[in-house]
Amino acid sequence: MKILVLGGDGFCGWPTALKLVAEGHDVHIVDNLVRRDIDRDLKSNSLTDIATMDERCLAANSHLLPDHNLCWHHIDIDLEYALFKQLVDDVRPHAIVHFAEQRSAPFSMLDENTRRYTVENNISVTHNVLNAIVEIDPNIHLVHLGTMGVYGYSKDFGVIPEGYLNVKVNSTEKDVDILYPTQPGSIYHMTKSLDQLLFQFYNKNWKLKITDLHQGIVWGTQTEETSLHPDLVNRFDYDGIYGTVLNRFIAESANNSPLTVYGTGGQKRAFIHISDTARCVSLAVHNEPDRGGVRIFNQVSEVRSVFELAKMVGGDIEHLDNPRKELPKNDLEAENTGLRSLGFEPILLNDALVNDSWFIAEQTRQNFNEDNVLTSPKW
Amino acid sequence: MKILVLGGDGFCGWPTALKLVAEGHDVHIVDNLVRRDIDRDLKSNSLTDIATMDERCLAANSHLLPDHNLCWHHIDIDLEYALFKQLVDDVRPHAIVHFAEQRSAPFSMLDENTRRYTVENNISVTHNVLNAIVEIDPNIHLVHLGTMGVYGYSKDFGVIPEGYLNVKVNSTEKDVDILYPTQPGSIYHMTKSLDQLLFQFYNKNWKLKITDLHQGIVWGTQTEETSLHPDLVNRFDYDGIYGTVLNRFIAESANNSPLTVYGTGGQKRAFIHISDTARCVSLAVHNEPDRGGVRIFNQVSEVRSVFELAKMVGGDIEHLDNPRKELPKNDLEAENTGLRSLGFEPILLNDALVNDSWFIAEQTRQNFNEDNVLTSPKW
Repeated sequence: MKILVLGGDGFCGWPTALKLVAEGHDVHIVDNLVRRDIDRDLKSNSLTDIATMDERCLAANSHLLPDHNLCWHHIDIDLEYALFKQLVDDVRPHAIVHFAEQRSAPFSMLDENTRRYTVENNISVTHNVLNAIVEIDPNIHLVHLGTMGVYGYSKDFGVIPEGYLNVKVNSTEKDVDILYPTQPGSIYHMTKSLDQLLFQFYNKNWKLKITDLHQGIVWGTQTEETSLHPDLVNRFDYDGIYGTVLNRFIAESANNSPLTVYGTGGQKRAFIHISDTARCVSLAVHNEPDRGGVRIFNQVSEVRSVFELAKMVGGDIEHLDNPRKELPKNDLEAENTGLRSLGFEPILLNDALVNDSWFIAEQTRQNFNEDNVLTSPKW
Repeated sequence: MKILVLGGDGFCGWPTALKLVAEGHDVHIVDNLVRRDIDRDLKSNSLTDIATMDERCLAANSHLLPDHNLCWHHIDIDLEYALFKQLVDDVRPHAIVHFAEQRSAPFSMLDENTRRYTVENNISVTHNVLNAIVEIDPNIHLVHLGTMGVYGYSKDFGVIPEGYLNVKVNSTEKDVDILYPTQPGSIYHMTKSLDQLLFQFYNKNWKLKITDLHQGIVWGTQTEETSLHPDLVNRFDYDGIYGTVLNRFIAESANNSPLTVYGTGGQKRAFIHISDTARCVSLAVHNEPDRGGVRIFNQVSEVRSVFELAKMVGGDIEHLDNPRKELPKNDLEAENTGLRSLGFEPILLNDALVNDSWFIAEQTRQNFNEDNVLTSPKW
């Protein structure tokens, strides 16, 4: 089938696009390359050397399935709606996979400019995508990457369900499933909470088919497909802005730096390996939802505390003041029966962490810059 | 005190600004005059002849309290954030009253361009205002005009509370107040639901003082202050896009046209007179909330069905196919104890409808254009 992958140059988008190509689909990536611009602005870098999008597509078409075509389109979906809509009309995709949002919580909390950019970009892109689907073909299935960070960590709500919370309304004594009352912890997470309301309305009014995947914190670098050629390698962020916690630990460990834990490390979070990101998106694409409501899955593999992760990676641990407003310690349990019912079998940290650490240690010698690790803003 | 009124050229913004001037405050209106541009585009018009903003300010400064100054600034808060922030810094207002959103549900449902404009403008303006407050002075009280239309009409939720719904979480058996699970009926209403999540986050993270006024459908034209001089007269919309239902009936009746009721007219809605809009905003400004959460009031006077309204106005009734996706008939009860506890005593339809109808009949002879009445899009 034909699939658009929006934000397909990014950390999650790229391996997902390759996975879908390897499965035999015709994949069109849409990206404005902003993630590379931000690296330049922040003076941050990927530990791995990543090829240009032209080189990546060339390598993909040579090394995956030469019968299928991966191509990419340099479009800013926020600012170039007409171009994007034209592309949707030209390609007539079966599904659109939407990663095209600013995805760093610390970046979204740096200052007024990054707050405003994150809201403006993320909401406009999501809304433009919905409009293009309404206008071109309401049968296109939208698969969106959300975040587990929308839920927050309230003890009142118990085990985190998949998108909807069952409650009894005290005034009427009626039992209803409501959209989970979100408690996002950053501007970035808030935009995913806003996205949910856009999806709810467009599903209700135009019956669009929408899957929202609330993803845990992603770790790892390489997937089966990105390992096939040096020009297919995935980016690996280890800085305080874009590096996710476990990837920062892996990079620090590989460079014999102490692992920098924010606060006590008692914060429990849900994690998922980058290969599973691609696999779950593929499962969602291959199993369409009905139109009776937005389908929400928790895209997570296992829950760990930050301190546990540091112990698993190994090395000296340095506790820093937590730059974020968050509980020093929390419980977390999250359901993931939706994707499991479609066949998802998670890759676990205990099985895969060694490989990823080894790969990063190999890559790291020339590119690691210790100044990049502790760049998170306080909020 | 010093007060900014954003969107102060509009139907609700203008009489509110005048009310605050009459109370002795220094009022700065910020507006980009887009409502007048939209009139030109839609070939719609106000039944009343409205003066330019320069003429309005001149008349206000001559006829209200000459010691106090009303001035206005031509700024697009979406596109000119730096200018707006500079103004907030220069004025250092005690409160910002925020009406600067595209406020017509039918307009927001016309086509992809008006959908995109409504989301882009409303979210960016609200977010820019929040950012200017964070940057310049987090003590500024933000008073925002929301809408009763965010709640929807679910029987499961009972009497509509003020912003928060008390529920028992079935998995934990805990009783909690959650932000009401909104069911907006149009893109416009959805933007006010998105605004709520922005307010929730900015209140939680920066402790901003925020009042969100979920207003019913406004009717009437003139207030005590707009009646003082012809250049102070308020706009009166009667078209299918911007005219609210009761004002359309009043205009139709004054022109001996049949009253056009969408569907059965069994839709119950909450109403409020334009004078009470100004009064409620003033009450909110004079009674600040604490910072412990967003304060939400229902700004409504009474609940009536559309058919009841038509009977009250009088004249022939013509039932049309309802262009909107809404229940043909619904129950509605809404709390308004918050504003009443601050002293709000609503103007009721039975007491005031005759005056407004008389005023409009006088005004209407030269300006009424019957083609403008039935311009609502279907959705």
